[in-house]
Amino acid sequence: MRFACVALIGKYQSTEVADSVRNTAAALRARGHEVLIEQGTASALGRVEEWTSATYDEIGQRADLALVIGGDGTLLGCARRLVEYDVPLVGVNQGRVGFLTDIACTQAAERLTEILDGHFMEERRTMLLGEIWRGGEKVFVSTVLNDIVLGKGETGRMIEFDVSIDEDFVYTQRSDGMIVATPTGSTAYALAANGPILHPAVPAIALVPLCPEALSARPVTLPDSCEIRLTLHATHEARAHFDGQTHFELRAGDTVFVRRSPHVLRLVHPPGGGRYFAMLREKLHWSAPARP
Amino acid sequence: MRFACVALIGKYQSTEVADSVRNTAAALRARGHEVLIEQGTASALGRVEEWTSATYDEIGQRADLALVIGGDGTLLGCARRLVEYDVPLVGVNQGRVGFLTDIACTQAAERLTEILDGHFMEERRTMLLGEIWRGGEKVFVSTVLNDIVLGKGETGRMIEFDVSIDEDFVYTQRSDGMIVATPTGSTAYALAANGPILHPAVPAIALVPLCPEALSARPVTLPDSCEIRLTLHATHEARAHFDGQTHFELRAGDTVFVRRSPHVLRLVHPPGGGRYFAMLREKLHWSAPARP
Amino acid sequence: MRFACVALIGKYQSTEVADSVRNTAAALRARGHEVLIEQGTASALGRVEEWTSATYDEIGQRADLALVIGGDGTLLGCARRLVEYDVPLVGVNQGRVGFLTDIACTQAAERLTEILDGHFMEERRTMLLGEIWRGGEKVFVSTVLNDIVLGKGETGRMIEFDVSIDEDFVYTQRSDGMIVATPTGSTAYALAANGPILHPAVPAIALVPLCPEALSARPVTLPDSCEIRLTLHATHEARAHFDGQTHFELRAGDTVFVRRSPHVLRLVHPPGGGRYFAMLREKLHWSAPARP
Amino acid sequence: MRFACVALIGKYQSTEVADSVRNTAAALRARGHEVLIEQGTASALGRVEEWTSATYDEIGQRADLALVIGGDGTLLGCARRLVEYDVPLVGVNQGRVGFLTDIACTQAAERLTEILDGHFMEERRTMLLGEIWRGGEKVFVSTVLNDIVLGKGETGRMIEFDVSIDEDFVYTQRSDGMIVATPTGSTAYALAANGPILHPAVPAIALVPLCPEALSARPVTLPDSCEIRLTLHATHEARAHFDGQTHFELRAGDTVFVRRSPHVLRLVHPPGGGRYFAMLREKLHWSAPARP
Repeated sequence: MRFACVALIGKYQSTEVADSVRNTAAALRARGHEVLIEQGTASALGRVEEWTSATYDEIGQRADLALVIGGDGTLLGCARRLVEYDVPLVGVNQGRVGFLTDIACTQAAERLTEILDGHFMEERRTMLLGEIWRGGEKVFVSTVLNDIVLGKGETGRMIEFDVSIDEDFVYTQRSDGMIVATPTGSTAYALAANGPILHPAVPAIALVPLCPEALSARPVTLPDSCEIRLTLHATHEARAHFDGQTHFELRAGDTVFVRRSPHVLRLVHPPGGGRYFAMLREKLHWSAPARP
Repeated sequence: MRFACVALIGKYQSTEVADSVRNTAAALRARGHEVLIEQGTASALGRVEEWTSATYDEIGQRADLALVIGGDGTLLGCARRLVEYDVPLVGVNQGRVGFLTDIACTQAAERLTEILDGHFMEERRTMLLGEIWRGGEKVFVSTVLNDIVLGKGETGRMIEFDVSIDEDFVYTQRSDGMIVATPTGSTAYALAANGPILHPAVPAIALVPLCPEALSARPVTLPDSCEIRLTLHATHEARAHFDGQTHFELRAGDTVFVRRSPHVLRLVHPPGGGRYFAMLREKLHWSAPARP
Repeated sequence: MRFACVALIGKYQSTEVADSVRNTAAALRARGHEVLIEQGTASALGRVEEWTSATYDEIGQRADLALVIGGDGTLLGCARRLVEYDVPLVGVNQGRVGFLTDIACTQAAERLTEILDGHFMEERRTMLLGEIWRGGEKVFVSTVLNDIVLGKGETGRMIEFDVSIDEDFVYTQRSDGMIVATPTGSTAYALAANGPILHPAVPAIALVPLCPEALSARPVTLPDSCEIRLTLHATHEARAHFDGQTHFELRAGDTVFVRRSPHVLRLVHPPGGGRYFAMLREKLHWSAPARP
Repeated sequence: MRFACVALIGKYQSTEVADSVRNTAAALRARGHEVLIEQGTASALGRVEEWTSATYDEIGQRADLALVIGGDGTLLGCARRLVEYDVPLVGVNQGRVGFLTDIACTQAAERLTEILDGHFMEERRTMLLGEIWRGGEKVFVSTVLNDIVLGKGETGRMIEFDVSIDEDFVYTQRSDGMIVATPTGSTAYALAANGPILHPAVPAIALVPLCPEALSARPVTLPDSCEIRLTLHATHEARAHFDGQTHFELRAGDTVFVRRSPHVLRLVHPPGGGRYFAMLREKLHWSAPARP
């Protein structure tokens, strides 16, 4: 049986998705699938004893498919937590359709049936591995689907840091920070910082400066085999953000080291889903002309 | 006697400027000027008893000219502290020439003599008055020469706020924040955020979004008679920065209200100084072509 | 009687506007106004003898109000042709509402009645005077409401030119050209070239480079008292465009000289019309957020 | 013998490079290489009989290495003419070092010796194949190293066209045109149009709008396996430019069809040459900070 064990993961601490989760779980059981409900999600359902709840690790080990009900943020979190387990994800959006969660809630039952029946398209999305190094030691590690952002910290002052690529010094930058983004992340925060839109199939990493002081600074798109080092100058304090969901306080001299993760995200779309340009057009209001 | 009483203000807590301050003070006395040394500056000189130290208020009340020795940041601070007193400022830059402090340290004696002899050009720079309103009460007030920045706070998450101009609702923005800049500030932080360069003689205020989520967002330049209101949405926390030197923590519902200050900064340049385009060209590397 | 003589000017060689022109003319006569119909517009009506046709010069001399039926382009043309006569213009848009022609066709009768009854708002828009100088002689002159564009010519190669402001050399630029725009023009072509949006009440001129080679090139906003000179380098050929409606072929060494016109455009809006931010929001799709 | 037959190609109709060509040819002969001199280049040398002149086709068939003496433009032309022959190119720059011609004239002899001795690095650069289709027929074909530009034609008016990718309609754009660029071209004209900088090893194609009317338009970076179609709307006339060196007049309805060329450019660098970030830094003035 295809996707014999399906996990359900809802938006964090959200009661709004409880009904969707319950209904979907029931429908899955009726089809004969084993159903796991993520612990935190289960606790928001009430009558927990009816369902098999599971940690992210258990989901990773046992599920053949993880169904994420929430928004793009929820899916980002799942991607990071399940990255080592190679479980394909499907995203159902509670509100408007997202970049990653491209199944509308109202059509979830129908689309899900198609997928479970074997009609689907699987896409592989590059992830990044970020490490913080301090005085020769690795002090923090995280994997992201969108971006790792070196940003200014508490003080709100511009920061200065060196950028190296594959151990080649590139330049010193004075700015509000730097976004290191995957193609998936290129339509998230990086786009607000005037970064390039990279099609998910381009094997690249974008370096996008945040409010750089030098007028000649520009984003650069690198092969995803590159290793990137951002080293904070003395007397500067900053913060590294991982998919906008966790962060780490940096000290002068710390290095943020970024390279492609050995893992990829497997993203499952229903037939006709994952249509990149249609989504860009709709989400970015691309057909909108400035004048009549 | 022109400029009978001259105040000297050095870079905050800097021992580097002590020699310059001492030499300049001695030279001024030799010419017969009364010399006031700003309290903090005096305390860095040693042998304080030789000099008449003064608070900013005393300087404002008594000085005919204030000589600022430091960088643009030092001059910004003086401008804000002396705003009510109508004292003209001259800026001497300890390092490279700044946008505001356009007399190089090495030429300070010569240029200063010219100015004291009556050979100078006075420029008037618009300042902005910023107020924070909370539940019908004004909770903070500050005057700035460069900019008032509504920025995201501790959490690092994008903020949402309404923008109104002269009580006309303009739009709701979701972004990292908004810079409200004078023409003087248009070549400072606002420029890093891709804002417009406004010549100091243009009576305008620039609204420059910081990493706005909407791709169609653009900076807007308004007549400086406009009153601007930025009102933070519920559940958002943010921070207002004044010339990058002081800040105020905002709560959901707070309004940042900005209008032209009734005061202007009087900036004194030596003959041939204050040449705007020459300065832009040099500071912004404008003659630099991209290719040979 | 207010606006005793009203001129009607339709979109150039357009039969689409004939009905609107005829109906409006009849309605105006019924109210007792004298009606002039612009020659070219009249010839598209048929049965010309029923109407008093008039040249632009006659309209300028006799009309108290000119009603323009077409789009923003039609109004631009009228503004340039009637610039010396101080006749106020009202714009009725045949299609979607424009930046300048802010009365929708469907509401024209009603709005016009309000205006003729004395309920209106008059706005004054800055215009620019452009001159082409060759070897000490003025060889072309034109007045514009939007912009004067120095653009590359036939060859399609980048051009090089010197930019001077008030006889001060600013820089040499290598680019596809330069837009010199009024605030009115700042939301037209200049906006597509990433120029600043200037509120119509800001007394300024924008210099917006077209695809400049130097990465540090930025648009600059100048006081509208400035005089701007763009002088083409040897071996370069280019073209000067005036409101995108007429152009002049330039030779190496030619200078495009731009300053504020002594004339202004008087633009008449019905009550509640001319709401700048509402128009920006609608035309530029400003409320459109990038993500749900 | 490595590189037994070496071709020399000088800047088109340039007498400046004649000495370099002669000296290099003599040095190559002295090492025992067969030397071919491109016909046009030979005719600028005088005493043609001393040298073996050759057409581009003959060079393509016989040369083991082509040495280009001129600027980036000269190398672009050679790349297009020799594309089918798989001959590696080396670029010597007569003036300042270029992006592609990274050997300075003054060091040419030394660097060339290193290369001929077998100390070199070979880089492969993607090229694009552009075709113009009219009414079902292919009417023009060209291969480029930098870019294919759909630009407005004689009239200077904005053009409208449909953009399709892999037969998927993307959007209709109204603009001055569209640049389709290789990573090599991403630091040429596309950069002036605010396109993304793509490292030459990123297998991608950039679509960069030229002054698009819609504020939400952004450049997009696609996998280089994509096929791009730009179809001109009725009543619009335009021009397609190939590496800025040849162009083709387009009519309404014409389609510019672009895909990766089956050929690649083999670019040979001396040891330590082809250092991408060093070149970017130098050519784009990247280390240049905006303020002291």
